[in-house]
Amino acid sequence: MSHSPRTYTVVGTGAVGGFYGARLAAAGHRVQFLARSDAAALRERGLRVRSAPGPDVHLAPGSFDVVSDPASAEPTDVVLVALKSTANGSLPELLARFDSADTTIVVLQNGLGVDEAAAEAAPTATVLAGLCFICAQRAEAGVIDHLDYGAVTLAQWSPDGSAVGVTDAVTRVVDDLTRAGVEASPREDLVAARWQKLMWNVPYNGLSVILAASTSELMSDGRARALVTRVMAEVEAASEALGHPVGAGFAERMRANTEAMVPYAPSMKLDFDARRPMEIAAIYDVPVRVAQAAGSPMPTVAALADQLHFLDERNLRSA
Amino acid sequence: MSHSPRTYTVVGTGAVGGFYGARLAAAGHRVQFLARSDAAALRERGLRVRSAPGPDVHLAPGSFDVVSDPASAEPTDVVLVALKSTANGSLPELLARFDSADTTIVVLQNGLGVDEAAAEAAPTATVLAGLCFICAQRAEAGVIDHLDYGAVTLAQWSPDGSAVGVTDAVTRVVDDLTRAGVEASPREDLVAARWQKLMWNVPYNGLSVILAASTSELMSDGRARALVTRVMAEVEAASEALGHPVGAGFAERMRANTEAMVPYAPSMKLDFDARRPMEIAAIYDVPVRVAQAAGSPMPTVAALADQLHFLDERNLRSA
Repeated sequence: MSHSPRTYTVVGTGAVGGFYGARLAAAGHRVQFLARSDAAALRERGLRVRSAPGPDVHLAPGSFDVVSDPASAEPTDVVLVALKSTANGSLPELLARFDSADTTIVVLQNGLGVDEAAAEAAPTATVLAGLCFICAQRAEAGVIDHLDYGAVTLAQWSPDGSAVGVTDAVTRVVDDLTRAGVEASPREDLVAARWQKLMWNVPYNGLSVILAASTSELMSDGRARALVTRVMAEVEAASEALGHPVGAGFAERMRANTEAMVPYAPSMKLDFDARRPMEIAAIYDVPVRVAQAAGSPMPTVAALADQLHFLDERNLRSA
Repeated sequence: MSHSPRTYTVVGTGAVGGFYGARLAAAGHRVQFLARSDAAALRERGLRVRSAPGPDVHLAPGSFDVVSDPASAEPTDVVLVALKSTANGSLPELLARFDSADTTIVVLQNGLGVDEAAAEAAPTATVLAGLCFICAQRAEAGVIDHLDYGAVTLAQWSPDGSAVGVTDAVTRVVDDLTRAGVEASPREDLVAARWQKLMWNVPYNGLSVILAASTSELMSDGRARALVTRVMAEVEAASEALGHPVGAGFAERMRANTEAMVPYAPSMKLDFDARRPMEIAAIYDVPVRVAQAAGSPMPTVAALADQLHFLDERNLRSA
């Protein structure tokens, strides 16, 4: 199969956008970053990924494009949406230049409703979900610390949620990422993939904030562990009611994997501690609403959602 | 109706035991306090209640009895159990001298399972629940600050939970308290009264700890208020399933009353902040179990219970 470089836009230059954008640029793709507060640093010092598992990447200034005004962005083959989902209200402005049938938009965000937000902002583009399993954080403008993992699961979005199989658009992005040294794999059923990701995110993100606890603290306490288990059971039941089951034994494997991890602060906890808005809508509110509509309400998850909103509002007031 | 002083024992000399014991002694009843750490202070300086709504009470040293060894306590007509329910493991020892058909034991504790604990410790005694609506705290040994309220609702316990009506035992304690200046009223249905008390305790005690929030902070936040409302709906449904309904409109009145209160830290929050054990078993675990057995599970309440146990264990480890 022939392989020619494509043009990529990365929207958002936090840990996720910086990491994947740097890998793709280093592999020979032309990459344009849509950046605001980080734009000057990227133009002056370039983009650096310090990777614990390796390899480090340093993109020299000028070897990639930096655009601050979305209206002057160049259309590209692919757009990686790597904002926090709390900023998705900006997507209509950010994606206006990319609303084309020739464009593939990859939503590298957690939760539900985020693919729809991208599809509404660019209705003629092809929308994929890109589910990232990565530990990384932005150290400063233009500097990303990659701590561990990095795999991406890709699946094509469809308006009615039905599985549309492994499309050409999925295959090409998987191929680009794989050649850039990223572990990438296709999935036929986007909704099932998103619910599998929720299976981890819903219990651990929320409880780490509400109880000020690491994943290992939660798993080593009998009652917290019981609560994690009941939350996962609600997520599993909802995925089944929706016709996109996460699969038998998946919840139990997630718990076992989490126990085997080093103590870990989920992204929502990092956001909370830094007094940034938490991704409560995508990870809690939309799933609660969707599950309710499917006849499989998630009362425990709904309680976590309410608690998180209360803590988020107080946190941001004092920011 | 003739009225002669009776003998009372108060088990526990915290805010509740100190307040009601002092009022009864001031009204002419002979009162014996079972006290350990506070015994010396009570013997030397007496017992003082500083009451915001009034009247203040000071019992002079020697005007009441103080006993530290439960085995040497004198049997009395009435025993007020005013320990925290977390100490109910001591009831068999504390109540051994009071296991008599002539004795009325009044359990001044919140939650469920506490009347049963007293009845098991003194199986031949008559057991009443005394539900206290009071804001008071122990300032130091022998000194109680009475901030507001003070009413007590009394109902007789029965092994099968059926309403046994207003018995003589209830009437006599109501009468003693009323003459001592305490607002006291009889109830026919103990279980309904306990679930009405849970209607306030379950949402506000737990959420004030988990979210580090006062009642007014909870009620002025839309999501926290929605959570309070759902928790109350679970409590109401359970009380109906048990055949002891709290009554239509009761939950809504509780919310309105709470909104009208000054910002208030529930007793569980005071316990948590002082690194004392929280009354999670009586206020959460037993109600969750009873509701589940009655076919009306309370998933939101169960989530709060798990969260509280996690926080309690960590809190006590660092005490």
